Amino acid sequence: MAGKKLKKALRKVERLKRKLKSYKSALPKTRQTLVSPLAPKNGFPSLPVIAGVRFATAEAGIRYKGRTDVLFVELAEGTSVAGAFTRSSTRAAPVLDCEAKIGKPSKGRAAILVNAGNSNAFTGRAGQNSVKAITTEVSTITGIDENRVFTSSTGVIGQPLPHDRIIAKLEELNSSLSDGTISQAAAAIMTTDTFPKGAGVEYESDGGTIRIAGFAKGSGMIAPDMATMLVYIFTDAKVSQKTLQAMVSKSVIPTFNSITVDSDTSTSDSLLVAATGAGNTAEIGDLRSASGKVFHAALQGVMLDLAHQVVRDGEGATKFVEVNVTGAANDSDARKVALAIANSPLVKTAIAGEDPNWGRIVMAVGKSGAKADRDTLSIRFGDILVAERGWVSPEYTEDAGADYMKQQDLVVNVDLGLGAGKSVMWTCDLTNRYIEINADYRS
Amino acid sequence: MAGKKLKKALRKVERLKRKLKSYKSALPKTRQTLVSPLAPKNGFPSLPVIAGVRFATAEAGIRYKGRTDVLFVELAEGTSVAGAFTRSSTRAAPVLDCEAKIGKPSKGRAAILVNAGNSNAFTGRAGQNSVKAITTEVSTITGIDENRVFTSSTGVIGQPLPHDRIIAKLEELNSSLSDGTISQAAAAIMTTDTFPKGAGVEYESDGGTIRIAGFAKGSGMIAPDMATMLVYIFTDAKVSQKTLQAMVSKSVIPTFNSITVDSDTSTSDSLLVAATGAGNTAEIGDLRSASGKVFHAALQGVMLDLAHQVVRDGEGATKFVEVNVTGAANDSDARKVALAIANSPLVKTAIAGEDPNWGRIVMAVGKSGAKADRDTLSIRFGDILVAERGWVSPEYTEDAGADYMKQQDLVVNVDLGLGAGKSVMWTCDLTNRYIEINADYRS
Repeated sequence: MAGKKLKKALRKVERLKRKLKSYKSALPKTRQTLVSPLAPKNGFPSLPVIAGVRFATAEAGIRYKGRTDVLFVELAEGTSVAGAFTRSSTRAAPVLDCEAKIGKPSKGRAAILVNAGNSNAFTGRAGQNSVKAITTEVSTITGIDENRVFTSSTGVIGQPLPHDRIIAKLEELNSSLSDGTISQAAAAIMTTDTFPKGAGVEYESDGGTIRIAGFAKGSGMIAPDMATMLVYIFTDAKVSQKTLQAMVSKSVIPTFNSITVDSDTSTSDSLLVAATGAGNTAEIGDLRSASGKVFHAALQGVMLDLAHQVVRDGEGATKFVEVNVTGAANDSDARKVALAIANSPLVKTAIAGEDPNWGRIVMAVGKSGAKADRDTLSIRFGDILVAERGWVSPEYTEDAGADYMKQQDLVVNVDLGLGAGKSVMWTCDLTNRYIEINADYRS
Repeated sequence: MAGKKLKKALRKVERLKRKLKSYKSALPKTRQTLVSPLAPKNGFPSLPVIAGVRFATAEAGIRYKGRTDVLFVELAEGTSVAGAFTRSSTRAAPVLDCEAKIGKPSKGRAAILVNAGNSNAFTGRAGQNSVKAITTEVSTITGIDENRVFTSSTGVIGQPLPHDRIIAKLEELNSSLSDGTISQAAAAIMTTDTFPKGAGVEYESDGGTIRIAGFAKGSGMIAPDMATMLVYIFTDAKVSQKTLQAMVSKSVIPTFNSITVDSDTSTSDSLLVAATGAGNTAEIGDLRSASGKVFHAALQGVMLDLAHQVVRDGEGATKFVEVNVTGAANDSDARKVALAIANSPLVKTAIAGEDPNWGRIVMAVGKSGAKADRDTLSIRFGDILVAERGWVSPEYTEDAGADYMKQQDLVVNVDLGLGAGKSVMWTCDLTNRYIEINADYRS
C-alpha cells in the first residue's frame, strides 16, 4: 500500500523535475548567472598581509555542505577592537555579546569567530547559551580572555545554532592559523553572496608603512543601520581603542549606513575593526591630529569600497546606482529623499528595465516626507538634465535617457533647490532574480 | 520505512511544485493569466443604481487604443462632494485643483471627469493649464459651475496631457449619460488593473432605502497616503458636505490609508464621495447621531471592500495578506510595525514562495523603529502560534506553517506584549510578475 503510494510520489517527482527543466531552459539568462554582473572584473583583490592577524577556516556543516562555513581570526596582544552594529530592536545574541565586550579595557590577544548558515537570531535564551558555549571554549583552547572573544553569526533566523559543530572544529582551527589567507576568510562567511568582497590600502606614514585590509559579506536584507552584513577590517597601525572607535562610529554613516539593497535591516549586522599595532609604527593620534586624519581617511576608503561591493552583490542586482541629493532644506531631509528614491520598488524596477522613468523619481521625492517644491526640483541622469522647473527639460530627449540607462553604473542627481542639505546613497536595481533568491532561500 | 520514504518524496513534490511556481511567474507575459488570481470569483458585483448619478465613457486615445479611457460623471443638483487625496509633496495638477474646490459652498449640479493613461503629474504650468482647459469646457458644455467640476488623471508621470483629445469627446460624453453603467465606468479608469473593482450596499433607513455604490482603480504605486488609486463612491442619501467630509476623513485611515502594495505613494491618489440626496430619504445627522453612525458604518464598509480589492489586484499579487499588530506601546508604534512587515521585500517574497519564514517577520519588527522586546513578542500565522518568548513555539511545526502558507488569504498576527496599541494593514506578496509589469510599463 505505502509502496504503491511511494512509487506514485517518485514518478511525480520525476515528472516535476522534467517540467522544471523545461521551464528553466525558457528562462532569461540572468537566471543562470552565478556571479553578479557587477562583481569586480579582476576577482578578489591582492591585499596586504596584516602583521598580528592570523586566519583559519573550516567546514563545520552548519547548514552548507562541501564548503567552509566557520572563520577563526586570532589577533595579536594589545590589539584595539572597535565596532558598529545593527540598531534592530530584535538583534541577535552574538551582536548583544559583542556590544557588551567592545571597549572593555584589556591588553591580551583577541579572537573573532564567525559562522555562516545560521544567524542565531531570535533563538531566545538558547541563543545566548550558544554564544557563551563558543566563547568559553575558544577561551579554553586558545588562552584568550573570554571578554576578548567576539562572535558573529549569519544565515537563517530562528533556528537553534548547532554550536557543537563549531566547537568540534576549534582545535583544528586553532592549529591551522595562517597569516596570508584573507581571501579564504572572506569566502568562509558568505551566504547568498556571489563573490567574496575584499579591500585594502597601504600608505607611508612617518614611522613606516601602514597597512589596512578587510573583507565583507552581505547581499540581501541590506539597508542602513546597517545591512545583513558582516565586515572585518584589520590594520597593523597602533591606535588606541577610543580613537579607533571614534573613527569607526563616524565613518560608518557615509559608508555602510548609506547603502540599501532592499530596505530590510538585518538582526545581525556587525562591523569589527582591529588595530594590532604589530607594524611597529608610531601610535596614531586622535581624530584631529595629522596622523589621525590620514589614517581615518584611509580606513574610511576601505569601508566605502567594501560597502559598494556589498551593493554590487545585491541580490539579483544588474545595476549599481548612486543617488545624489543636493539642495535640500537640511541634511536630514536630503537623506530622506535619497532613501525614498533608493528604496522605491518602482524606481528600482524601472532601472532594471533600463527605462529612464524619471516620473517615478518625482513620485519618490513626493512621498519622502521631506520638504520639496515641484517647481525648484531638478533631476539629472549623470550629466543629462532631465527635469527642472516642474517639468521635463526642453533639451531632454527620451533617447538620451534610454542610452544612459544602458550603463551598468548609474548616477541619479536630484537637486531640491531649497537649501544646502545633501546626502548620497548607493543602491541597486530590483530584478526577478531578487524574488527568486528570496522566495527560495530556505528550500 | 516505506512510510518515511513516502513522506520525504511527498515533501520533495511540494518543494518542486513551489519551485515550478516561481519559474512559471518568471515566464514571459503571454504565458500568464491576465486577471489577478485574487480577483473576486464572481466578477464585478451587481451594484444598486444611485439616483442622481449618470455615467458616460469614451475612447479618447490618450495612451491606450481600442478601449475606453475617459469617464464623465454627472451629479444631480445639491449633491454634497467630499474627498481625500494623496499627501505627496509632488502631487499632480488635478489633485491640487480638487483640493481647492472641495468644500466650497455651492448648490448646483456637479461633474467628475477622469482619464486613464496620463496622470498629468509633474507637468509644470502646462499641467494646470490642461486642468483649466478641461474644466472650463465641461462647464461650457454642461452648464455646471466650474467650481463643481472635479478631475482626476492616472497613468504616466511627466508627459503633457493631450487634453484636446478629452475635450473633443465632451459633447459625445454629455449626450450619452446613463444611470446604469457603473461597471463600464469602473473599466474606463483602469491602467495596469487586471479587473474592475466595485462595491456597494443598500440598507433600510427610517425614511426608506439608502444605497451606496462605488468603484476604484489601482494596482501599483500603492501605499498609505494613499495609493495610485482613484476611488469614486456615490450615494442617494442626503448628507451635508461637512458631515460627509468628516466621515470620509475619518474612514480613509483604516481603509485606503491602511493598504500597501509596494510602499510607493502616488502623486495622483484621489477619493471622491458624492451624496446626491436624490433618494429622498431624511437628511443624515452628524457623526454622533444614530442615522449618522449607521450611514458612516455602511460607507466605511464600501471603502474597506474597495481598498481590499485594490490590494487583491496588487501588481503580480498571488496572496492577500492581513497584518494584524496588537500589544504595541501605542497605536503609532503598532502602525510602524504593521507597515514594516507589510512593506518588507523579504517578507513579501517569502510569502510569494509559500515559505513560512517567520524570521523575516522578526527582522521587520526589529527594523520598524517601534518599541519591541524580543522576549514578549509573539507571532501567529492565522491561529497557529509560531513564536513566543523570544523563540519558536515548542508546538509549532514547519509543516503546519508551510500548509498554512498555501492559502490564498493569509493573516499574520504579531503581538508585541507591551501595551494596548494596535493596527491592521493589508498587503500582497511580491512576485516576478511585479518586476515584469514595472520594468516594462512604459515600453
